[in-house]
Amino acid sequence: MKLWKRLCAMGVLAGVLGVVAGGVLAAPLKPDEQMKFRKAGYGFMAWNMRKIKGNLEGPYNNDEVAKAAAAVAAVSNSGLGALFGPGTDQDLGEVKTRVKPEFFQQPDKVKELALALNKEANELARVAATGDAGAVKAQFGRTSDACQACHDRFRKE
Amino acid sequence: MKLWKRLCAMGVLAGVLGVVAGGVLAAPLKPDEQMKFRKAGYGFMAWNMRKIKGNLEGPYNNDEVAKAAAAVAAVSNSGLGALFGPGTDQDLGEVKTRVKPEFFQQPDKVKELALALNKEANELARVAATGDAGAVKAQFGRTSDACQACHDRFRKE
Repeated sequence: MKLWKRLCAMGVLAGVLGVVAGGVLAAPLKPDEQMKFRKAGYGFMAWNMRKIKGNLEGPYNNDEVAKAAAAVAAVSNSGLGALFGPGTDQDLGEVKTRVKPEFFQQPDKVKELALALNKEANELARVAATGDAGAVKAQFGRTSDACQACHDRFRKE
Repeated sequence: MKLWKRLCAMGVLAGVLGVVAGGVLAAPLKPDEQMKFRKAGYGFMAWNMRKIKGNLEGPYNNDEVAKAAAAVAAVSNSGLGALFGPGTDQDLGEVKTRVKPEFFQQPDKVKELALALNKEANELARVAATGDAGAVKAQFGRTSDACQACHDRFRKE
């Protein structure tokens, strides 16, 4: 993809994901740093989803589920789109990525999937705070589906 | 350290950090998985602290700061203590750790530092939501100090 086209896609992507570049501009992140931080965000989200799943399968603890759901929502709301800048579409030494090239070419679809996750993750946090395990189970499924929809389309095996 | 002693320390540690083992028991994490997830949590927290710092130095965006502070608090509240189980005190293949042995031998000090971070991080999230940049700057400093206090004592160079 031509650089100007990629930069344009990045700009659109940052915009649609609600990324405010203040912090990023003040302290620009190198591509490998962006990749490390986005992987950290997804990894932290995965751990918290796993905790919620464990609570739904085993003894259910309202406080742990509420905190885990708040963490999932916080990651979803954190503007990870800012960490998919130019040069982050490929492995950089030790830092590997599973993102497909299509991710950088389809900003509208990325926006759609990102907003869908935001919606479900924030609803999961809201429901978890009420302590209604049944409602959490249903909303956990919708949140997992939102994660999977993006993995299926933009993450390599 | 003798195994029973380490297990005891782990139990105390899990307890003092308010870790509820529901999810963990239902889906036990191997030591290298615990290390990967805790590094992800700290890495995600570091990125969000960096965003707040950038906003305090450059153009200040209330929404980005509020979301970043909520993310820092979410990590602090997520029960990372559950990810310092037996066998996670040393490098495991590709998964490296900078935690000092003392971390596993001083659960009371770990509790003190963890609760101090929880207090400052939750206050940072509360202040950030008000949009008072001056108050955020002061509280950001207190939160950074709480991070540093633990790094100085329990993290290798």
